Amino acid sequence: MTNPYPGRIAKCGERMRHLGIDVFLLTKPSNMFYLTGDGRLCAYAMITADGKVALGVPVTDIEDVKALAYHDKIVGFDDEVGMIHSIAHYFEHFGIKEGTVGLEYTFLTQSMMGMLTHPHAKPEKVLPKDCTHILSELRMVKELDEIERIRYAAEVAAIGMDAAIKFTRPGVTESRIAGAAEVAMREAGAEEFWRSYVCSGPRTNIAHGLPTTRKIEENDLVMIDIHPIVNGYSADICRTVCAGKPTKEQQAAYDLYLEAQQSTIKMLKAGVDMTDLEGHLHQVMKDGGHGNHIFGPPIHGVGIEFEEAPLPPGHAFFHGEKAPPPLPENVVVSVGNCGLYAGPWGVRVEDTNWIKADGYETLTEYPRVLVAK
Amino acid sequence: MTNPYPGRIAKCGERMRHLGIDVFLLTKPSNMFYLTGDGRLCAYAMITADGKVALGVPVTDIEDVKALAYHDKIVGFDDEVGMIHSIAHYFEHFGIKEGTVGLEYTFLTQSMMGMLTHPHAKPEKVLPKDCTHILSELRMVKELDEIERIRYAAEVAAIGMDAAIKFTRPGVTESRIAGAAEVAMREAGAEEFWRSYVCSGPRTNIAHGLPTTRKIEENDLVMIDIHPIVNGYSADICRTVCAGKPTKEQQAAYDLYLEAQQSTIKMLKAGVDMTDLEGHLHQVMKDGGHGNHIFGPPIHGVGIEFEEAPLPPGHAFFHGEKAPPPLPENVVVSVGNCGLYAGPWGVRVEDTNWIKADGYETLTEYPRVLVAK
Repeated sequence: MTNPYPGRIAKCGERMRHLGIDVFLLTKPSNMFYLTGDGRLCAYAMITADGKVALGVPVTDIEDVKALAYHDKIVGFDDEVGMIHSIAHYFEHFGIKEGTVGLEYTFLTQSMMGMLTHPHAKPEKVLPKDCTHILSELRMVKELDEIERIRYAAEVAAIGMDAAIKFTRPGVTESRIAGAAEVAMREAGAEEFWRSYVCSGPRTNIAHGLPTTRKIEENDLVMIDIHPIVNGYSADICRTVCAGKPTKEQQAAYDLYLEAQQSTIKMLKAGVDMTDLEGHLHQVMKDGGHGNHIFGPPIHGVGIEFEEAPLPPGHAFFHGEKAPPPLPENVVVSVGNCGLYAGPWGVRVEDTNWIKADGYETLTEYPRVLVAK
Repeated sequence: MTNPYPGRIAKCGERMRHLGIDVFLLTKPSNMFYLTGDGRLCAYAMITADGKVALGVPVTDIEDVKALAYHDKIVGFDDEVGMIHSIAHYFEHFGIKEGTVGLEYTFLTQSMMGMLTHPHAKPEKVLPKDCTHILSELRMVKELDEIERIRYAAEVAAIGMDAAIKFTRPGVTESRIAGAAEVAMREAGAEEFWRSYVCSGPRTNIAHGLPTTRKIEENDLVMIDIHPIVNGYSADICRTVCAGKPTKEQQAAYDLYLEAQQSTIKMLKAGVDMTDLEGHLHQVMKDGGHGNHIFGPPIHGVGIEFEEAPLPPGHAFFHGEKAPPPLPENVVVSVGNCGLYAGPWGVRVEDTNWIKADGYETLTEYPRVLVAK
């Protein structure tokens, strides 16, 4: 793999100049990782429109970051005051006394915003501006090496799903099933996870089914939604299985949802519109009599984050992202995120897919069956 | 256990009236959990100064939240627009047309802030005000039932530490060791975790040692810092062990750090000042010749979050919290968070402690030895 960072930073600089932004001050790990090769908490990256990269990290982390991150300058700080002063120093070093600084409004809390725009950090005449959408757009179309990393993460996710499903039986807790998935994924190469969702019984009807110590009961539906991080990239897979014998209604709802999800995936190719995909998936559910059991956007991007641009409009509003144009080649999307929520229970099947010029490839290949044979 | 929520909400109301805040609009799960018994993503709680609790949750989650949360009113929404409208409806229902709404500035991103203060959500004459410190103060002094929950989490953490240390040997990855700890903690009752840190070799010198796929090498130091969530409460424990034989310098640094940490813990009792505790811990390190190897605040609170109020001044600035007054009885603090960072490696030992009227009790009991016998 060639060093991808100078190219990404050059593209970033083009957008910045086009939009009249003089410098980015990034703190979101995924954005820093994309542009420099390292993203961590309590650190920042200043990126100038002409492609200079200046990093600030905890003083303890300097050698580690030096080895991992593409950069021109790096400084270590002892505490938050030191961080603020180092930012001021970089503004001075780059000769930026006025203009615009891009900040990640979808990531920064009010308190962090206050720190980064503190008079001891930012020159008074440099005005903050949201740069979230610029980074989202840059990250949305994947390079082939990124797709290979997502493919690897998808294979690890399938291994985790297999372990979780084999572990699922009456008497075990949701939490323990999540653990089975995670250990298998760690053994297969995952360094970390975006949250692992496991929910069961009536909890399959909730929107974010984080695991609890609820024990699986005979004939429960169990929903498993996992997202390993492998070499910095992720994948998104969800399966619903029954710990016993599903009711006819459950099997019919599952079959319907799977049809909705799979027929939507078949529509994927460069140029397709997210609204059309969402409309189709919802229509299948409506036609099947489950129009009132739709919740949440069915499609989102997958990459460094398990949920990233492109995000659909409703979701996008929450995240402060813009609604995307038609999807170009080499965008990776998850299809099936919404689920079918019948009230006493829910079902969901979700897969990560690579959009190609004339079609697609599903990266998360794992059987889609409510009852394992 | 009696229902603790009316009492907490009454105390919250007192503070609100004292500070002239008419209503809280909370979205941080830990704060909602403290006041109502349920905290989840993509939900909110409106709390009035006279103790009314109105919840907004994804429509899928209504039954689940009804069963878990103390509340007067609950409404389900389909999407972000519905969420905004439901907030507006509650303002109208409570007759709040002007005044002040408390928002969590340390939790809200710029984008979320924009949504909650959107003209379709918040009446124009209701002004936002940071309420983070009020909730932090409320949560800082623990009820006895909360301490029992933290004690349980601490026991689960010790079980996780034992599993992790027994799994630590050359050839296994940091990630797999984290998995060993987590599975053991899940089996012992953990529903989830705040991040599990495992770092090894040169990575023991970094500030936030999230696990990677680095394999442990012979004689590596390995730092394990874990935080299970058990019944909604957490604990914080860190141990450093050697996968083989430590150097004399490593053993001496470990012994020094352990002395600094343990002698600081011995100072704990109601009325002690965090600055004095920090000063003492640092002085022991300085006297031992490691004054340049200090990084980060050594002490912080533990409760629903593994890192919460009281937070020390430097850290507090970052989190937007106020520096705390002398610590009263029934505050739970972690001591040893800073670590000794020698450059090529680091050591850290950290424990969770209950501050009592005349002393303390360490809740995370697990042997503190660099080389297991």
